[in-house]
Amino acid sequence: MRMRINLKFLLVILIVLGTITTLTYWIRCGDVTSAPFDHLDRSNPKAGMKGNLYSLDSEDDNFSENDASPLVQEGVPLIRTRGGLKTLDDIDCLINEEYTVSCKQEDGEVFIPFTFLHEYFEVYGKVVQHNDEKHFEWQHSYSKVYHPRGKYDPHGVFMWFENYNVGVRDRVLCISGAEGVPVSTQWDPQGHLYPIQIAQFGLSHFSKNLTEKTPSIKLLDAGEIFPSAQWTMLTNGQTKSPLKRVLEKTTQKKVLEFKTDGSDTDSGLTITSKEDSNHMILTFDLMMKANVTLSVTILGGKRTIYKLHYVMTDSLLSAHENEIFFGIGTSKDWMKITRDLIVDLQKGLMLVKTSRKGTKPRSPRVRDITLRGWGYIDNITLCSSAHMAHFFAVANWFVRHQDEDGGWPIMVSRRLFPGMADLAPGWYSAMGQGQAISVLTRAFKVTGNITYLYTAMKAVKPFKVRSESHGVMTAFAGKYVWYEEYPTIPSSYVLNGFIYSLMGLYDLKMTCTHKDCKEVTKLYEDGMISLKKLLPLFDTGSGSLYDLRHYSLGVAPNLARWDYHTTHINQLLLLSTFESDPILKSVADRWIGYMKGKRAAHN
Amino acid sequence: MRMRINLKFLLVILIVLGTITTLTYWIRCGDVTSAPFDHLDRSNPKAGMKGNLYSLDSEDDNFSENDASPLVQEGVPLIRTRGGLKTLDDIDCLINEEYTVSCKQEDGEVFIPFTFLHEYFEVYGKVVQHNDEKHFEWQHSYSKVYHPRGKYDPHGVFMWFENYNVGVRDRVLCISGAEGVPVSTQWDPQGHLYPIQIAQFGLSHFSKNLTEKTPSIKLLDAGEIFPSAQWTMLTNGQTKSPLKRVLEKTTQKKVLEFKTDGSDTDSGLTITSKEDSNHMILTFDLMMKANVTLSVTILGGKRTIYKLHYVMTDSLLSAHENEIFFGIGTSKDWMKITRDLIVDLQKGLMLVKTSRKGTKPRSPRVRDITLRGWGYIDNITLCSSAHMAHFFAVANWFVRHQDEDGGWPIMVSRRLFPGMADLAPGWYSAMGQGQAISVLTRAFKVTGNITYLYTAMKAVKPFKVRSESHGVMTAFAGKYVWYEEYPTIPSSYVLNGFIYSLMGLYDLKMTCTHKDCKEVTKLYEDGMISLKKLLPLFDTGSGSLYDLRHYSLGVAPNLARWDYHTTHINQLLLLSTFESDPILKSVADRWIGYMKGKRAAHN
Repeated sequence: MRMRINLKFLLVILIVLGTITTLTYWIRCGDVTSAPFDHLDRSNPKAGMKGNLYSLDSEDDNFSENDASPLVQEGVPLIRTRGGLKTLDDIDCLINEEYTVSCKQEDGEVFIPFTFLHEYFEVYGKVVQHNDEKHFEWQHSYSKVYHPRGKYDPHGVFMWFENYNVGVRDRVLCISGAEGVPVSTQWDPQGHLYPIQIAQFGLSHFSKNLTEKTPSIKLLDAGEIFPSAQWTMLTNGQTKSPLKRVLEKTTQKKVLEFKTDGSDTDSGLTITSKEDSNHMILTFDLMMKANVTLSVTILGGKRTIYKLHYVMTDSLLSAHENEIFFGIGTSKDWMKITRDLIVDLQKGLMLVKTSRKGTKPRSPRVRDITLRGWGYIDNITLCSSAHMAHFFAVANWFVRHQDEDGGWPIMVSRRLFPGMADLAPGWYSAMGQGQAISVLTRAFKVTGNITYLYTAMKAVKPFKVRSESHGVMTAFAGKYVWYEEYPTIPSSYVLNGFIYSLMGLYDLKMTCTHKDCKEVTKLYEDGMISLKKLLPLFDTGSGSLYDLRHYSLGVAPNLARWDYHTTHINQLLLLSTFESDPILKSVADRWIGYMKGKRAAHN
Repeated sequence: MRMRINLKFLLVILIVLGTITTLTYWIRCGDVTSAPFDHLDRSNPKAGMKGNLYSLDSEDDNFSENDASPLVQEGVPLIRTRGGLKTLDDIDCLINEEYTVSCKQEDGEVFIPFTFLHEYFEVYGKVVQHNDEKHFEWQHSYSKVYHPRGKYDPHGVFMWFENYNVGVRDRVLCISGAEGVPVSTQWDPQGHLYPIQIAQFGLSHFSKNLTEKTPSIKLLDAGEIFPSAQWTMLTNGQTKSPLKRVLEKTTQKKVLEFKTDGSDTDSGLTITSKEDSNHMILTFDLMMKANVTLSVTILGGKRTIYKLHYVMTDSLLSAHENEIFFGIGTSKDWMKITRDLIVDLQKGLMLVKTSRKGTKPRSPRVRDITLRGWGYIDNITLCSSAHMAHFFAVANWFVRHQDEDGGWPIMVSRRLFPGMADLAPGWYSAMGQGQAISVLTRAFKVTGNITYLYTAMKAVKPFKVRSESHGVMTAFAGKYVWYEEYPTIPSSYVLNGFIYSLMGLYDLKMTCTHKDCKEVTKLYEDGMISLKKLLPLFDTGSGSLYDLRHYSLGVAPNLARWDYHTTHINQLLLLSTFESDPILKSVADRWIGYMKGKRAAHN
């Protein structure tokens, strides 16, 4: 019995770009699970059947003394099947004696449907129409290689992270109002503060600050500088003046004191802004006395009104219809608050909308800002960007939250793979430590504040402690030291996390001026020896491996999907700008080839 | 500029089988070289071009916190391109932005030509016609898996070697007339005695003896038993009787003494045989006095006459038209000679024919046998097979040729890979040692002759000596012991050769009764620990690796072509019949899946 393959078609994108009309259908794989061989088994119930394979070669013992000479003969031309077949006929293709797909035949050529090939080989394709001409674009892989523009500067742009927008990622629940750092839903839908995500948020903002143009800033109110637009009371049952310019005691600066009676959302002290979709980063300094809420009215497409409320509370985020509430904590100290209003709006709407649609209003712009409660406020601005403010929110978070062992514990349980013990909440990640170091060395370099450097130096401690003892270090075959993104038992040897951790050590080794430099340098150099030695073990000849769990557990190798494969390439290209060993570049170049369907040679 | 791919078509096979007419065209890869990426580069001069890859994903940083969750979305059905395209149109396929191939389109489906797919993915296909019905057979791989029929018996059939016919392999120059063992042209076209090939010749004959039916034997002349057909003189200028039945001194047996004057090929003492293509193994005992030649006249198709001459000389093989000359040495001791006349005929004709055609005469059969010169002969038979005679020729060769370090030195220089030092002539191979042991333990078991067992025990010595010191042992990462088929520096870790060497150690450990058993057992067990631990490193997720040279040299992995991949599978299936660790079977089963296009999961 033959089965027709049940092909799944998955993604449709319609792009109209200038005069080029691209009629696109992406055919993407059904789903991705960790089950080996899942790929074909689903589409064909007979896959996995055993039995003798059809032998192509009547002398299949011919090679068995381990000759390296090729079995395949060459030079005999194909005699095409002839017989008057001028038009394309239907022909069944029997795939590996297991199931059948419908193909076409013309003369000696057989044509195979792409939907089958997509499923079988996980290649991608689309028909592209350009005016009257159309063609089919075959792509072996997706995702983008970032070629370094020059030698890596340990105090400059972090790798290629200027391309990242961490805040808008789906797995960022929101940017914490109290901390100014992202809250991750990775492995815990309730959200947790995940050092790796926080560091990446900081590093991407730091890098964007260096690569993007200088932000444009609109000052709404600061100290004694009166705003162009006047503050007004929305409603009033109040007798005392709600607004005063006073000398605040702790800072000895003239700031705005606000004090309103009402707590309902219709009351408050309001300042209007010229509607402008280019200035959507709100920054201000705030000292809260009681019941403070700062609300921002945002207009979206068709003048839909959204409200973002920043409330003196410890809760994180809530939303009701178009009203979104961020807790900014209950601290009574001065706080520097920086909010990406578009991100905040999007994260809030994600809570109330059932689909992505509607979570990104068109051309949002600020209409007004309202203050309620009692507090002091200063330096209210709307900016086109405020990357360094985000960056320092992150750097300061790392200073505040480092524990006594130098680590930033990750408070979720993590199961990397069945057969590996779960990481219990409180584990450190070499990648988290390394990326935090990359943040902190840059914060030190920019500010000269030695606290950042001390914090970075202390963060090295878990690199010296084995995974078994709550550190992040292991050694492949007891010989080659490895810093574990996930310090599992047995070891997992995740490649990209290891390289990120080495980047942190490198940044620190290039920054430190301390006696501990020697130790950091040794940790880095030992890691590089391991990387260069073990890198080939991640090479499958047609892609790369995400980790070496197959070595640790005796299971199937864990192939890296194309975006991780590309991360590996990007990392190696970056390393090769300052590490002279040619293996880094040669592996990267070979792995780039794999993305276009090239393969390592077989014997 | 776009390039049309230059496809090569390579092999045509036409098979007519009973009522099934199979019109077959094998499209096979151009050639196989060790250059990485050679595969596509040849067909497309633009392959290898660099540049940014087309990005499929506008949020390609989405994964970068190392989430294991899939990037790929699912469930959205494909909207097919519509627009009245009822017939198949031509459409160009742009492959990875590099070159173009001609495809077909019908509605939303694009059809890709198989000749391109064959080249790109190295898959195989053919149109098969069965009466009026035809279909296209797609095959991911060639070569055959041998599923073990039961638990491996260390004194029984050696693995699946009953399926091998070593003698007829192209790289066997001939079966030495003096030694009765094959002469290999591998790495040296002049020929050399290659222990691995010799052992495989012996082991396949031993195994065939157990699996094939009992041979049929026609006795032509033995001792006092007169032949049914009489000896006659072809020409005669001779006065004395050329033929006597005498008591030979050394054996005290009655044998035939022959003594002819002429040395030209038209003279001699001849016995005719009933023409019979089923009895083509000639055996006899011979003691040469002077100028002995035993000639066999063979009739092929259309009664073409071929002559095989076995001559008292140290030269190996020569041929002139249809006359073929094998040297059988110049020893004056009794010799037991066993010749596969079909193999001998074929090897001789290979020397004189310019193509394979004509090297395999149809239905060859013996017409007569002629003796010339002076010697004693006994037990002349024509048999349907004489596997054990071939086997003992091999076992005795190993006894005679073992050196004082227990090894069988290989007298050719071997370069496994640039970057590895050449193996200078005289190297040992763990595979050669192991397979010799498998021969010798079987010879001991059959005969009870302790010399075979002593020789096998002595053959273990190089397993204890590192490659650097002329042994065959290395250790992966200084930790996991490995027995090297090629004891290169740095190590190569060839998988199949290692497993064959373990089979030898296993056979010996199951045979020995000696105090050295403990040592053999330890060597085997250490090797098995390494095999189980390192086996996953040979798994690419879609095939297997031939060796670990990529680890040793930092180069591209050396993918195993399908027949080596199948050898790995066959070996693991066999091991799993007596080794209980489930990893052997689970890896084998996964690797069988790869032969049908299945892959390990990606993350």
